[in-house]
Amino acid sequence: MPVVILHKIMEKLTRNETKFIRSLAQKKVRDAENAFLAEGPKAVSELFGKYPCRLLVGTPAYFERCPQVEADEYRTASLSDMGRASLLKTPREVLAVFGKSDGQPPAANLPEKELCLALDAVQDPGNLGTILRIADWFGIRTALCSPGTADVYAPKVVQATMGAIGRVRVHYLDLGDYIASLAPSVPVYGTFLDGESLYAGRLTPNGLVVMGNEGNGISPELARLVHRRLLIPSYPALSETSESLNVAVATAIVCAEFRRQAVP
Amino acid sequence: MPVVILHKIMEKLTRNETKFIRSLAQKKVRDAENAFLAEGPKAVSELFGKYPCRLLVGTPAYFERCPQVEADEYRTASLSDMGRASLLKTPREVLAVFGKSDGQPPAANLPEKELCLALDAVQDPGNLGTILRIADWFGIRTALCSPGTADVYAPKVVQATMGAIGRVRVHYLDLGDYIASLAPSVPVYGTFLDGESLYAGRLTPNGLVVMGNEGNGISPELARLVHRRLLIPSYPALSETSESLNVAVATAIVCAEFRRQAVP
Repeated sequence: MPVVILHKIMEKLTRNETKFIRSLAQKKVRDAENAFLAEGPKAVSELFGKYPCRLLVGTPAYFERCPQVEADEYRTASLSDMGRASLLKTPREVLAVFGKSDGQPPAANLPEKELCLALDAVQDPGNLGTILRIADWFGIRTALCSPGTADVYAPKVVQATMGAIGRVRVHYLDLGDYIASLAPSVPVYGTFLDGESLYAGRLTPNGLVVMGNEGNGISPELARLVHRRLLIPSYPALSETSESLNVAVATAIVCAEFRRQAVP
Repeated sequence: MPVVILHKIMEKLTRNETKFIRSLAQKKVRDAENAFLAEGPKAVSELFGKYPCRLLVGTPAYFERCPQVEADEYRTASLSDMGRASLLKTPREVLAVFGKSDGQPPAANLPEKELCLALDAVQDPGNLGTILRIADWFGIRTALCSPGTADVYAPKVVQATMGAIGRVRVHYLDLGDYIASLAPSVPVYGTFLDGESLYAGRLTPNGLVVMGNEGNGISPELARLVHRRLLIPSYPALSETSESLNVAVATAIVCAEFRRQAVP
C-alpha cells in the first residue's frame, strides 16, 4: 500500500530502480546519467539545495522524521530493501540520487583572489574525500583536479567528504594549461622533500596549492610550474623517520598553516 | 628442489604454513601466537631489527635481491603461492611473520620528559596506522592506547603505518588510570570544538595529547582529565563548514603545531 506523507503518494522502490542505484558505482553510468549517489541522513541532508535531488529513497521512519525534503521523486523501502540498493556494508535509512553540478569551469583568475587547491592525480577515493573535507574546514572553496584524479562523484568519495562536496567546487581540467594561463604574480605552491620549510616564508592568502599523487608526488611537468616549493619539516630535523606523509595529511598541515598566517 | 642461498637451505611454503599466515588476520590468533604479519619489501624491511622475524617467505627473486635478511625460518614461494598466503589484494614478493614486542609498559613519567600521544578508542585501522605514521614523522616515540583502540598488529594497521610501528612504541592500558597517575605538572592536551585556539597559547615540548574516537571524540571520563583544551580553528571562523576533521587529520595539524613551536 502506498504511504502518504505531506500529500505526496510514495511508491515502493522497484527492482529496476534498485539496479539503477547500484549501477551508480560505475563511472560510465554516473557520466551517462549525469548523476551520483549519496547514502545516510547526514550525507544526504548536506547535499539538499546544493545539487538537484532526483530520487529520494527512505524508510517510512525516515520520512516521518524528515517530512520536508524536496526531491523530484520519492520511494519508500524497508531497511532490507535499502540493503539491496545500498553500496555500503550497512545500509542506512535514506539514500538519494543527485544530479551533478553544471561543471562551469572556474574563473581564469580565481587563485589571484583566493586560495585554491590543485590535485595532481590523487588516486585514492578516501584521500580525495578527506582532502575536500579539509578544504571545507579551511574555507577553500575550489579544488582543481587533473583528469588522473579520482572521480569526486564516486560513492566512496561522496561518503568520505561528509557533505563537503556541497560546499567545495571540484573541476577537472588540464592543470598544466591552467597554471600556465595564470598571471605570473599568482603564487603557485607545492610540497617537495627538498622544499623550503613551510614556516620559513610568508604564505599568501591567495594562490594555488598543488598536491601530488600518492606514490609519485607532483609530476615533473607541474613541478616546473611551482615557484614556491614547501617542505613540511619532520622533527627532529634529519632524524630517521617515515619518508613521507599521506597526501591528505600533508594537505591538512599545509592548509592549517596558510590559515594560521592569514588570521591577524 | 630446495633453493640454497647464503648456505641456508630453503624449503617451499607448505599448505599448513599458508593457513597459519592467513589466520594472523584474526586478533585471537595474533594474541595466542604473540605474532603479526607484514607484507611487501618496504614494510618488511622497516621491521627487521625492530621485531624478531620468525618466518620469512619470499619469491626466489626476492631472496636473490636481499640475501642478507635474518630470520628464524625461511620459505620460498612462487608469486601465485604468495597470493594464497597473502591478505592483500595483490600479493607482494615477500611477507614475514614477526614476534610482537615485549610490551613493557611505558615509564610512569614519560610525558613529563617528552611529547606522547594517547588514543581514546580510535577504531578505524587506517586511522590508527596513519596516526602512527604522523607520530613517526614528528618524532613522537610513544602512543598510549585505550583498550577500545584498534589493534596495532592488525594487518591493515601494519600496512598503513608504512613501517612506523618499527619506530613508535604502542601500549594498551587504561588511559584514565594512567593520566591520573601523572604528576599534576604534566600538561594533558585534547582537542574539543569548544577549546581554545591551537595558536593562542604556548604549547610545551612535553606532555600528553589525547585524541578521541571517530564518532564520539574524547570520552567524558577522559575529558575531565584534560586541562589544555585545544581547538583547530576553521576558516573563516564561524563559517558554515564541516563539523569535524578526521581524527588522523586533526592529529597531524596538532602535532605539526607542537613541533613548529618547539623549533627556535
